[in-house]
Amino acid sequence: MRKIRSIALALAVAALAGPALAQQQYAKAEDAIHYRQGAFTLLGYHFGSLGAMVQGKVPFNAAQAAIDGDVIAIASKLPFHAFAEGSDKGHTGAKAEIWKEQAKFTDLRDKMQAEVAKVSAAAKSGNLDNLKAVFGAAGQSCKNCHDNYRRRL
Amino acid sequence: MRKIRSIALALAVAALAGPALAQQQYAKAEDAIHYRQGAFTLLGYHFGSLGAMVQGKVPFNAAQAAIDGDVIAIASKLPFHAFAEGSDKGHTGAKAEIWKEQAKFTDLRDKMQAEVAKVSAAAKSGNLDNLKAVFGAAGQSCKNCHDNYRRRL
Repeated sequence: MRKIRSIALALAVAALAGPALAQQQYAKAEDAIHYRQGAFTLLGYHFGSLGAMVQGKVPFNAAQAAIDGDVIAIASKLPFHAFAEGSDKGHTGAKAEIWKEQAKFTDLRDKMQAEVAKVSAAAKSGNLDNLKAVFGAAGQSCKNCHDNYRRRL
Repeated sequence: MRKIRSIALALAVAALAGPALAQQQYAKAEDAIHYRQGAFTLLGYHFGSLGAMVQGKVPFNAAQAAIDGDVIAIASKLPFHAFAEGSDKGHTGAKAEIWKEQAKFTDLRDKMQAEVAKVSAAAKSGNLDNLKAVFGAAGQSCKNCHDNYRRRL
């Protein structure tokens, strides 16, 4: 379990191994679950907002896309320190395999974060075609993890 | 009810009235509740992380503080579009007074966002004394709204 990998590490140098910086631990597993669910909720909402533009369900809106881009860049980095030991129990869709397959889980995390970073940049470019070019791969990178490690609640 | 005030507006020009930009509505009140709870969870966690440094419970960590500062700046702006009509029902601690006292609620929101913006800047300054100077007022600005408009779940 790598819960000591911190938010700070994930955000500041996503691709680089480094010292642990997490300072605040969770008093209860439930708190860790709420935290990561919160981050994934924001990630899903704002990724979905961009998806609606990509699919033409709503008109492209550069200002909204830029906000969405900012939120997904941060939200994609936040949840992973909160897969704390013992937080596979309770009201969570996280499968126990997460804690048994750390290398694979981390690899899928890294790939998702890289794809989401591309979407973030495209969303902030003000150009819908840029967004369309990278959106599908990012969606697939989300799905890769969900297929393996998430139960629907 | 001002649900058409958008995330984009809130984030981009917090102090400035402007056109509505929210594109994605909530299919269910439950979705709006989850969204705003997610944003408040991240806000509370990262504000709490800074609070632990202010109170000396953990050593000041400039890298972590900078992350916390980034997250609270965004998270403080996100939840308010999600106080949608009808989302006072369900698993929410939001009191019905929110929808009855929009002017007061919005005023407390604006003051909180202004105080949190100061904390964000101080957190990113790398100086604990800067943070200590503004943290208390921000905490009070959170409490002002909680005291009036939140039930503990």
